[in-house]
Amino acid sequence: MIQTILLKQRPTGRPKISDFEFITEESDLTLKKDEMLLETVYVSVDPYLRGRMSDAKSYVDPFKINKPIYSGSIAKVIASKHNKFNEGDYVSGMLDWKTKQISNGNGLIKVDATKAPLSAYLGVLGMTGLTAYLGLTEIGQPKTGETLVVSGAAGAVGSIVGQIGKILGLNVIGIAGTDEKVNMITSEFGFDHGINYNSSTNMNAAIKKVATSGVDIYFDNVGGPISDAVLFNINKFARMIICGAISVYNNTELPQSVSVQPFLIKNSALMQGFIISNFSEKFPEAINQLATWLADGKLTYTETIVEGFENIPKAFIDLFDGKNKGKMIVRI
Amino acid sequence: MIQTILLKQRPTGRPKISDFEFITEESDLTLKKDEMLLETVYVSVDPYLRGRMSDAKSYVDPFKINKPIYSGSIAKVIASKHNKFNEGDYVSGMLDWKTKQISNGNGLIKVDATKAPLSAYLGVLGMTGLTAYLGLTEIGQPKTGETLVVSGAAGAVGSIVGQIGKILGLNVIGIAGTDEKVNMITSEFGFDHGINYNSSTNMNAAIKKVATSGVDIYFDNVGGPISDAVLFNINKFARMIICGAISVYNNTELPQSVSVQPFLIKNSALMQGFIISNFSEKFPEAINQLATWLADGKLTYTETIVEGFENIPKAFIDLFDGKNKGKMIVRI
Repeated sequence: MIQTILLKQRPTGRPKISDFEFITEESDLTLKKDEMLLETVYVSVDPYLRGRMSDAKSYVDPFKINKPIYSGSIAKVIASKHNKFNEGDYVSGMLDWKTKQISNGNGLIKVDATKAPLSAYLGVLGMTGLTAYLGLTEIGQPKTGETLVVSGAAGAVGSIVGQIGKILGLNVIGIAGTDEKVNMITSEFGFDHGINYNSSTNMNAAIKKVATSGVDIYFDNVGGPISDAVLFNINKFARMIICGAISVYNNTELPQSVSVQPFLIKNSALMQGFIISNFSEKFPEAINQLATWLADGKLTYTETIVEGFENIPKAFIDLFDGKNKGKMIVRI
Repeated sequence: MIQTILLKQRPTGRPKISDFEFITEESDLTLKKDEMLLETVYVSVDPYLRGRMSDAKSYVDPFKINKPIYSGSIAKVIASKHNKFNEGDYVSGMLDWKTKQISNGNGLIKVDATKAPLSAYLGVLGMTGLTAYLGLTEIGQPKTGETLVVSGAAGAVGSIVGQIGKILGLNVIGIAGTDEKVNMITSEFGFDHGINYNSSTNMNAAIKKVATSGVDIYFDNVGGPISDAVLFNINKFARMIICGAISVYNNTELPQSVSVQPFLIKNSALMQGFIISNFSEKFPEAINQLATWLADGKLTYTETIVEGFENIPKAFIDLFDGKNKGKMIVRI
């Protein structure tokens, strides 16, 4: 019996459990040549999935109604007729939200459970780490001594961005939503400063207070009013990496904010949307760098691991309440 | 007797004649070594000057209260003790709004009245042409066959941007505020399509109708709702050159608009503020290219020439009502 999670309907605003449908079915698991049977081990839930659940017309690669949702996952090969994957291997890639599935191996890579915990391949050594590293270096173009602000700083991407910022010699300021998270990013991840946006009545002033030389790079995971406040503090030639907008993903009205154009003109500043898939030719070099830093103890990471296939939708929804610290992962 | 125009007070909202002060004074016009006496011939009035009239804290190089305003100007050398400039020469550069002034030549270049009309050195062969050319090529990175949208298309910069777009093989759409201007950009300047934003009830749809393959490059001179409408039509990897925001320069409240971040993420798109002074190392090559196109008849330009030193403030204010076609220049 295989369990599968389908997108039942496109969410309106904040996703609800009832937007998802669980089905259990008998499936033919007979393998053809160059196929293998996978058993899902870890499933990554990420804010960007919210976009793909939206109106098919407005998003690239939207999920289809009544079809399985898919996201970054780790699976174990439990039977194989594939010449590159053997029984007992672990693989990483985009997989359907299913307990078991047949794959032809396209888009999957083998991961080595002896070199790093399997879940790390969804995080610091996976899309999360690549997003942090390539977003910061390719668009951010960091120079030693510059000031970096990271929003969603206690999240999966943000917590790695800040650490890489420190490795590269930046002054790093993180913005998060609880004192506990702010404490974590400064004490565990080495950020220079943390700001709790829920207890700051004037974010513009709160940023100015710690970014005493202004903001050169902004790694934006959230959008909305926090990003507006950063704009007031940018320096000439600032670079803003627009990586996520979790604060507005659930909006049913088109979000409004401060007009960015006058700030961009005044500061000859740049804002660029970042999607990791555009940088695939840089992946091997980037993974190598991240693995080196991880092995050297320069990079650490936090995960929030939720147990049970049946809890995937809830874990995803909890992202929008900031219930995760670091990468949110479901163990099957 | 020398006449001078001072900034009397920082304008609130739309500038008023009473924000300016005219003074007439006896000045010592005795030249020292390496000085020359200039008589102003043409003064350029441009939307960006509005920014410099604002709060000193919020703008780079703001004008000072009770000091002369200055802008791009052409002057005749009427006496000289400078070894590089002779009586009878014409010069171009940033000059005070004065009928006569003494200069040491810093930042001024000689212009040749026999090669092009003097006023062209404020326009197509001056900062205006450089802004159009370098903004479009350096940030826009145009590729033959792409679609370019230009706002403020009948203005000084916009009308040149569109023509360069055509020279470079782009599909060019201009947005302007009257049918007369729309007619001018298509019939005189060779734009493929024109849209009158004052008669279009749905700008998003109006752009979509003519940008049938979407928008690859947006040269933004206006900001505000017109720029919001363009966002809905951008293609993946779109480049937006944020050159001006005339629609919001006079706002007394911080302007709000559609949040750009989700559009940038979805399209891996770029927005960058453009200020010509950051590209000065490219000026010689750019001027050369513009002069060649002008001589070859590939580039034409329109000016609105207002007569009289006393009309400089009015000509400037009239920019915000779109009373100019092409470059707005005051002849002294």
